Amino acid sequence: MKFSEFFVKTLREPPKDEESVNARLLEQAGFVRKAAAGVYSFLPLGWRVLSKIENIVREEMDKIGAELLMPALHPKENWIKTERWNALDVLFKVKSQHGHEYALGPTHEEIVVPLMRSAINSYRDLPLAVYQIQTKFRDEPRAKGGLLRGREFRMKDLYSFHQNENDLENYYTNCAIPAYKKIFKRLGLNAIVTEASGGTFSKFSHEFQVEIENGEDTVYVCAKCGLAKNKEILEEGVGCTVCGKTTWRETTASEVGNIFKLKTKFSDSFQLTYRDNEGKELPVVMGCYGIGTSRLMGVLVEKFHDDKGITWQEAVAPFKAHLISLYESREADEIYEEIGKDLVLYDNRSLVKTTAGEKFMDADLIGIPLRIVVSADTISKGKIEIKRRGEDEAELISKEELFKMLKSK
Amino acid sequence: MKFSEFFVKTLREPPKDEESVNARLLEQAGFVRKAAAGVYSFLPLGWRVLSKIENIVREEMDKIGAELLMPALHPKENWIKTERWNALDVLFKVKSQHGHEYALGPTHEEIVVPLMRSAINSYRDLPLAVYQIQTKFRDEPRAKGGLLRGREFRMKDLYSFHQNENDLENYYTNCAIPAYKKIFKRLGLNAIVTEASGGTFSKFSHEFQVEIENGEDTVYVCAKCGLAKNKEILEEGVGCTVCGKTTWRETTASEVGNIFKLKTKFSDSFQLTYRDNEGKELPVVMGCYGIGTSRLMGVLVEKFHDDKGITWQEAVAPFKAHLISLYESREADEIYEEIGKDLVLYDNRSLVKTTAGEKFMDADLIGIPLRIVVSADTISKGKIEIKRRGEDEAELISKEELFKMLKSK
Repeated sequence: MKFSEFFVKTLREPPKDEESVNARLLEQAGFVRKAAAGVYSFLPLGWRVLSKIENIVREEMDKIGAELLMPALHPKENWIKTERWNALDVLFKVKSQHGHEYALGPTHEEIVVPLMRSAINSYRDLPLAVYQIQTKFRDEPRAKGGLLRGREFRMKDLYSFHQNENDLENYYTNCAIPAYKKIFKRLGLNAIVTEASGGTFSKFSHEFQVEIENGEDTVYVCAKCGLAKNKEILEEGVGCTVCGKTTWRETTASEVGNIFKLKTKFSDSFQLTYRDNEGKELPVVMGCYGIGTSRLMGVLVEKFHDDKGITWQEAVAPFKAHLISLYESREADEIYEEIGKDLVLYDNRSLVKTTAGEKFMDADLIGIPLRIVVSADTISKGKIEIKRRGEDEAELISKEELFKMLKSK
Repeated sequence: MKFSEFFVKTLREPPKDEESVNARLLEQAGFVRKAAAGVYSFLPLGWRVLSKIENIVREEMDKIGAELLMPALHPKENWIKTERWNALDVLFKVKSQHGHEYALGPTHEEIVVPLMRSAINSYRDLPLAVYQIQTKFRDEPRAKGGLLRGREFRMKDLYSFHQNENDLENYYTNCAIPAYKKIFKRLGLNAIVTEASGGTFSKFSHEFQVEIENGEDTVYVCAKCGLAKNKEILEEGVGCTVCGKTTWRETTASEVGNIFKLKTKFSDSFQLTYRDNEGKELPVVMGCYGIGTSRLMGVLVEKFHDDKGITWQEAVAPFKAHLISLYESREADEIYEEIGKDLVLYDNRSLVKTTAGEKFMDADLIGIPLRIVVSADTISKGKIEIKRRGEDEAELISKEELFKMLKSK
C-alpha cells in the first residue's frame, strides 16, 4: 500500500499522556490512536497487524473448535444467575431507556452456557468446543498499560463442553495446551506454561507467560524442567509439580493467555445437563481458554523493539517490505507495482516535503522487517538497496533477486 | 464440516417469540440464537454466512478506502460537541464506576473526525477514505424485526474526506455508488438507488432498496429510468430527478445501505480543517456510507426462502453442498474427505437417531444450494444423487463429475 492511500501518519514525538512502551511506540508509529483512557482505535497499519495475529489464532482454533460470534450486550438476569452481577468489580453496566439492563461482556460464560442448552441433550452431543474473536469490555480502575490493560479490548475465548472431568482433562492437556503453544511459537514468542490459582473449584489454572524485562508479573521457572509457577502458587509449596525439584529461577513476564477448568460451576447456574448412555441426567463439565489478541499486540511490541522503534516479527509485520524512493523517477513505482500492494508499504511522500532522513527514521519506527531503497546511486548500479530491520549493513541486489525473495513465501 | 463438529442444531418448530420471517427461519435452521430482544448470537453456520457477506463488502471497500477498527466506547464529550448526546434518542449510555461516561457507538463520526485531526493537515492529505466492519448499538424501543432492527448489530461504515463539495460529489457518485451496486449484485440482490431526505444540510441522501413482498418501506420507482424516491421525498415534488417523467410504480422494499453527504457538519464540531495550496485554512468536507451487514443477512433470508426453508444464493451460502448418507458405509465419509470440509456440510448423524425424512427436511431448512445423497440405491448404480435447492428433480452423476462441479470455482 502507499502511505497516501493507507493513511500512514507517524508522530514526531511519542504521545505525552502514555506511560507504557507499547502505547508510546504504537501511537507514534501510527498503529493506534487513543480515543479515551484504555480505549484505542486501530489505524489501518495496526488493524493489519491485529488481523494477522487474530488469523493465526483463528487457524489454530479452527482445528479444535467451531467459530461463532456472541453479543456484547448480556441480559442482567444471566449475570444474576451466576452471582457475578455484583461480584465482578470490572463489570460495565448499561441501562436502556426502555427498562432493560445489560452487562457489557468481559467474558461469555453467561451467554454461551444458556446457548448450549438448546444444543446439548445427550452424551452423543459431547465433546463440543466453540470460540469467538471479539471485542470485550472491563471497567478498569486504572488503564495505563496501553494495549496491555484496556477498558475495551479484543479477545479470543474458547469454551469446551464434556461428559466428565477425564474428558475435560484430556482436551485441556492434549488439545488446548498444544494449540496455545503452536500459536505463540508462530508469533515468535516462547510462552512459558505457568501454574496459577484454580480458584475454589480447581487446583490449578494455567497462564502462558512471556519473559519480558519490564513484565508486570513475577514467575518462577523450574531450572530442571521449564514448568513455571506464579507467585501466588509458589508460596503454597516449593516443589515442581512435574519433576519435584525445588530450584526456581525468578523472572519477570507478561501474560498472553490463560486456560481454566470451570468444571460444573456455570453448568450448575443454568442447569446445563446431558443424558448419559443409561439415560441419567448429569451436569456438563466445562473448560474456558482465553487469549487477549490486542493485548498480545502490545506484548509483541514490549518484546520486539529497540531505541529506534518497533522490530516486528515477519508473521505479524503489517507488510514484508518498506519501500523508499530517494529519486524522482518511475523506478520505485514500478517496483511497487511488481511486488504488489499486499506485500509492500510504499513511502510515496514527496521528497520536497519529507527528507530522506525522515523517511529512514519512519521506516525504523514502523518496524517492517525489510527496507528497500531506490536512489540515484542504486539505479546507476542497476541494483536495489535492501536492509533488514535491526541490522546495520545494507546490501545491493538485483530487482529479480528482490522479487524472488519477497514472493517466495 | 460435519454436523457434530460444527455445532449444527435445527429446531423442530420456529421459535414462538419471533414474528419476522428472517428470525423464525434463521433460528429454526440453527444460524442464530436470540440472547435478548434485538440481540443475537451467530452460531457457526450463521457466522459463516455473515463472514461471507462481510468479506464481499470488504473486497469492494478495499478498492475505495483503508480498513481500520474504531472502538464501541465513545467519550461523552465527543457526543456533547456534536450536540447528539441528548438529541439521538437511540443512544445507549454507559456510566463507569470511576466517573467516566460513554456512548455505545451507533455510528462513528464522533470518533473518526477527531481521529483525522492528527492525520489531515494539508490539501496533500486529501482525499482520504477509511472504513470499518464492526458491532454497533442502538437502544431501539421495539426490536421485533429479527436481524432487520437489532439493539446490537454488525455494520460497515465508510467515511470520506475531501477538499470541497465537488470532490465529495465525484467520490460519492463515481466511487461509492458503483461500489455499492457491485456489492449488492455479488450478493444476488437488485438494489434500487432511492432518493431520500438529505436532512438540513444536503438536498438528498441515497438509500439502496431491495424489492421484497413484505418490505417495511414504500418506494416509488420511475417507470422510465429506474430511479426511485422514498415516500417522504416523493411528496416534495413528483418529477423524476433524472429523466423528468412522472410515472411512478409503487412497491415495498427493504433498505440495505445508505449514503450521505455530511459536508462540513461534523468537521465544524471538531475543527477538522486543512490548508489549501495557498495556505488558507478550510473545513474538511465529508461523506458517510453505511451497510448493515447483519441486517443484510436478514434481508437475504426475507428475499430468498420458500415454505421449506432458506434458499441461499451461492455467494453467501455457508457451504456449497450438503451431504447426506442413507447407508452405513465409508462411501459418504470418503466423499466428504475428497470434497473437503470447507465446501461441504456433512449430516453425519446416526440413522438410528435421525430418519432420512428428518435429514431431508433439515437440508431444505438450512438451504445450501446443492444436496448430495449417498444411498444403497446410488451405490448399486455407481453414482451419487444430486439435487439443487428449490428444484424438485434429482439427478444421478458420477463421483468424478461431482468433484469437478464443486471444485470448479
